[in-house]
Amino acid sequence: MLDKSIQVGIIGLGMIGGSIAKTLSKKGFKVFASDINENTIKNAINDKEICGSLEELDQDINFILIFTVPVLSVGEELIKNKELLSKALLVSDGLSVKNSLKKEIEKNKFNTENFIFSHPIAGSEKSGYLNSKEGLFNNKITVITKLPHSTQVAIDTCIDLWSLLGAKTINLNLEDHDKYFAQTSHLPHFIAFALISMISKSEDPKKDTFTGGGLKDITRIASSDPKMWEDIFISNRLNILKAIKSFKSEIDKFEKLIEEKDAKEINQFIKNAKNFRDSLT
Amino acid sequence: MLDKSIQVGIIGLGMIGGSIAKTLSKKGFKVFASDINENTIKNAINDKEICGSLEELDQDINFILIFTVPVLSVGEELIKNKELLSKALLVSDGLSVKNSLKKEIEKNKFNTENFIFSHPIAGSEKSGYLNSKEGLFNNKITVITKLPHSTQVAIDTCIDLWSLLGAKTINLNLEDHDKYFAQTSHLPHFIAFALISMISKSEDPKKDTFTGGGLKDITRIASSDPKMWEDIFISNRLNILKAIKSFKSEIDKFEKLIEEKDAKEINQFIKNAKNFRDSLT
Repeated sequence: MLDKSIQVGIIGLGMIGGSIAKTLSKKGFKVFASDINENTIKNAINDKEICGSLEELDQDINFILIFTVPVLSVGEELIKNKELLSKALLVSDGLSVKNSLKKEIEKNKFNTENFIFSHPIAGSEKSGYLNSKEGLFNNKITVITKLPHSTQVAIDTCIDLWSLLGAKTINLNLEDHDKYFAQTSHLPHFIAFALISMISKSEDPKKDTFTGGGLKDITRIASSDPKMWEDIFISNRLNILKAIKSFKSEIDKFEKLIEEKDAKEINQFIKNAKNFRDSLT
Repeated sequence: MLDKSIQVGIIGLGMIGGSIAKTLSKKGFKVFASDINENTIKNAINDKEICGSLEELDQDINFILIFTVPVLSVGEELIKNKELLSKALLVSDGLSVKNSLKKEIEKNKFNTENFIFSHPIAGSEKSGYLNSKEGLFNNKITVITKLPHSTQVAIDTCIDLWSLLGAKTINLNLEDHDKYFAQTSHLPHFIAFALISMISKSEDPKKDTFTGGGLKDITRIASSDPKMWEDIFISNRLNILKAIKSFKSEIDKFEKLIEEKDAKEINQFIKNAKNFRDSLT
């Protein structure tokens, strides 16, 4: 278990960072944070959801640093907090794409002994500090990715941190992480954005009336934050383009069955899909 | 308001037909039903959710007939219940596609004065009598479609019926119905089936592990009933193929922005999609 004397520094107080802050503060930890929006920090201090700004963290006492900013802002934030990086017991993150984070670390030649990457699978179409909440990670999975020089202390601290936050950790290497999430998260978002975009351009006057038959369900995630997703599409571009290619080939096959009025094969296609979907817990 | 002496005959006791039966029985109406599965009828009678089988309906007292079978089974059921059709105060349905229903009626030269088509927007990935429930239509919309010879009595009875079931009715002509639902319901299902099918074929050993980041949300509707959707894809084929074409052109545009790493335009594409999605109530 993590000792309560360990301080926590959070860079980026959005939905993920904010939820980490609220949960750990409630458990008695001293949490300090920075955010691009200074009012967020002021309000969080006023509401006693954090102890103070990141500058107030005492560098002579053990601390953990967590970067929860949009994927392509992390480079800049790492450099800004360079001094803290080397002193931290653990440096982690909450990002959905890992290769760009790794590139920034290599480019800046940071010592990575205390780095373990984290990706809590707890996101939704909501974003921002206002949508953060204590307990967000309860019974969720956090994917952790070790770096070649990660120490056992850093690994243990990271697992303890997520256990304290209520999440179970699963190990995944960096390449697999970015490949899997391209398929199971980034592609679904790509599709939801494209489908909603297509409907929004329709000239039908009642295009926003009959949306209860599936459209609203399938496109809930199209309400996600544009800056966050711009960064994901750019930074995990190659894996995402590969996933899009597979998806296009699958819709071509299914479309052909409909063109050919092949009832039996349409039924089989749906049955196979339903069976796999029903098996997901 | 509908007089409680009016009997209700339901052909097909699935989720929609069953929910109509349960709601009306609870309100004191006499409900009779038929189903391809005789045990469903027996159990529903035992559980006092219907009064009896369709044969027990008294043809000398006013009654309403509602066809809630898969789209391509309706022709056969109309013929089977030909005698009842002409005597009913109102003949309606719960189908998601209307052109095939209209063709069956024309082919068999049924008198359509008492026909009004209904499509309650209350479906989900669930199906079957076991998933039916009293109150399913509360605060839902039912799209109704008049035929050229529909009488005012039939129209009023249909509106009263849905109001009694808790739903608000909206008029839509047959061509628009099938076109709109191809875009807002059938295309989303097509996409969900194709996406899940693609993931199920992936060779990644952990393909079913990291599905919380969007995949499960977007593909919930892929658990829908295969026979029901086979019929929809066949019977609304031309409208659906048109919708697929528009969707493919939209994903091509979005894919190109990612290929070109055009961050600004990716952001704008997502912003536009998000704005439209957020506007849907």
